[in-house]
Amino acid sequence: MNDQLSRLSLNQETIRQWSLPELAEGCVKAGIGKVGLWRAPVQAYGVERAAALMADAGLTVTSLCRGGFLTAPDPAGRARALDGNRAALDEAAALSTDTLVLVSGGLPPGSRDLYGARERVADALAELLPYAAERGVRLAIEPLHPMFASDRCVVSTLAQALDLAERFPAERVGVVVDTYHLWWDDRAPEQIARAGAGGRVHAFQLADWITPLPAGVLLGRGQLGDGSVDFRSFRRQVESAGYGGPIEVEIFNEELWARDGAEVLAEVIGRYVQHAC
Amino acid sequence: MNDQLSRLSLNQETIRQWSLPELAEGCVKAGIGKVGLWRAPVQAYGVERAAALMADAGLTVTSLCRGGFLTAPDPAGRARALDGNRAALDEAAALSTDTLVLVSGGLPPGSRDLYGARERVADALAELLPYAAERGVRLAIEPLHPMFASDRCVVSTLAQALDLAERFPAERVGVVVDTYHLWWDDRAPEQIARAGAGGRVHAFQLADWITPLPAGVLLGRGQLGDGSVDFRSFRRQVESAGYGGPIEVEIFNEELWARDGAEVLAEVIGRYVQHAC
Repeated sequence: MNDQLSRLSLNQETIRQWSLPELAEGCVKAGIGKVGLWRAPVQAYGVERAAALMADAGLTVTSLCRGGFLTAPDPAGRARALDGNRAALDEAAALSTDTLVLVSGGLPPGSRDLYGARERVADALAELLPYAAERGVRLAIEPLHPMFASDRCVVSTLAQALDLAERFPAERVGVVVDTYHLWWDDRAPEQIARAGAGGRVHAFQLADWITPLPAGVLLGRGQLGDGSVDFRSFRRQVESAGYGGPIEVEIFNEELWARDGAEVLAEVIGRYVQHAC
Repeated sequence: MNDQLSRLSLNQETIRQWSLPELAEGCVKAGIGKVGLWRAPVQAYGVERAAALMADAGLTVTSLCRGGFLTAPDPAGRARALDGNRAALDEAAALSTDTLVLVSGGLPPGSRDLYGARERVADALAELLPYAAERGVRLAIEPLHPMFASDRCVVSTLAQALDLAERFPAERVGVVVDTYHLWWDDRAPEQIARAGAGGRVHAFQLADWITPLPAGVLLGRGQLGDGSVDFRSFRRQVESAGYGGPIEVEIFNEELWARDGAEVLAEVIGRYVQHAC
């Protein structure tokens, strides 16, 4: 494996047109040894089968996306969310990944109480923690861009994610530093330093910020180098903060999904070397 | 005029289907004494004519939208931007409004330097300040939601806006508190207090946050009460911080624009009373 690529991890949603066997084969061919996986395709393929496929290909699973959605105020909704997250932790353990990415969830219907929703996330983390610890899986809180605050994630900044994570031991609860969500925030550098000092950078993900945003804004992420993100600066910051783990490329973009997967992966690798190494 | 409505100002873009005479007539009929205007429709109608129309109708112009777009790095682009802002200040003075709303502008093509762009905004403010002071017009920096950081406004938080404004006298450079742009930010309360303590809340605007966002995200604002914003809390905050000025409703929403203007204004008034009084 090319040494420059040793830390690169391909999140499977970047090339969602690939099946899991295509993903494994494509990564091996391209010299990529790490992948980030998503629950739905893993479940559809079979968790144990997926784990065996990755192991046989010599691929390390750097993270499982995603748990979370922990803001339901009613006991039944809350219980369902906790059950779902326990299942996600089981799947993460089966895949031998140490990191479950958590997207906190948005505001419940009709609610305007971001503060209350974040407190419910904290309560849920406390409940999930022993189960996660038994499985050796870390809970990685991912702040999403503030444009997702109402419908997807009430944790919008790295500072908020750390405020939550720091209530728990660092080896159990940390944060995801994703350039797409944090690039605009002038407090990100100080908060990355804070996260690193506490040993709480549990994942580092790359995608570029491009405009115009598409309707619904979820699938508007850019290929590295196409947008406004200074990847080298982010990488320098997480490394100065002590992070030496995987660097996962996670791009949701319908144009990339319409292309040949191997071609997209070759482009991802080229852009990674050009912009993030 | 209903006392509850005495501070309500209708920003004309909320009912952009109305011509300026329709706006004046519609506001008078509805008992609204304040309007926020935009440069393009005012220019199209004629600045002096528009000023006379508002004065004859007894309407106060609470703000002119908008100046700004001050991030160009090249001397020619910068000179054009400054000229445009001087013209906007002339227009504001002609309309007898004391407040020009400034949207700072996005990243120049190919740039990834948010910090540098913000410094160019500060330089431009310094250049515009004497011209604004001569005309008795305040420069009100509006932080826009971080989803606009690359293409429209490199000032994304009230803290950043105040960092810029506080380099200048408070009676000359202040900030706009717009619920749509700030609702997600857990630092907004402390920053509103900071702005108020410094006498820098120069405008207070209301729109609700609704999803899904439309393509391009600009026209996705919600009618008051349809979304996630706690207007009463925001109003309490700005008033606790000492603000007693106009409360301007500024909603960009194509569904509102497709309806009868008088009906929309009646709805705005009802929602304002219900959610912000």
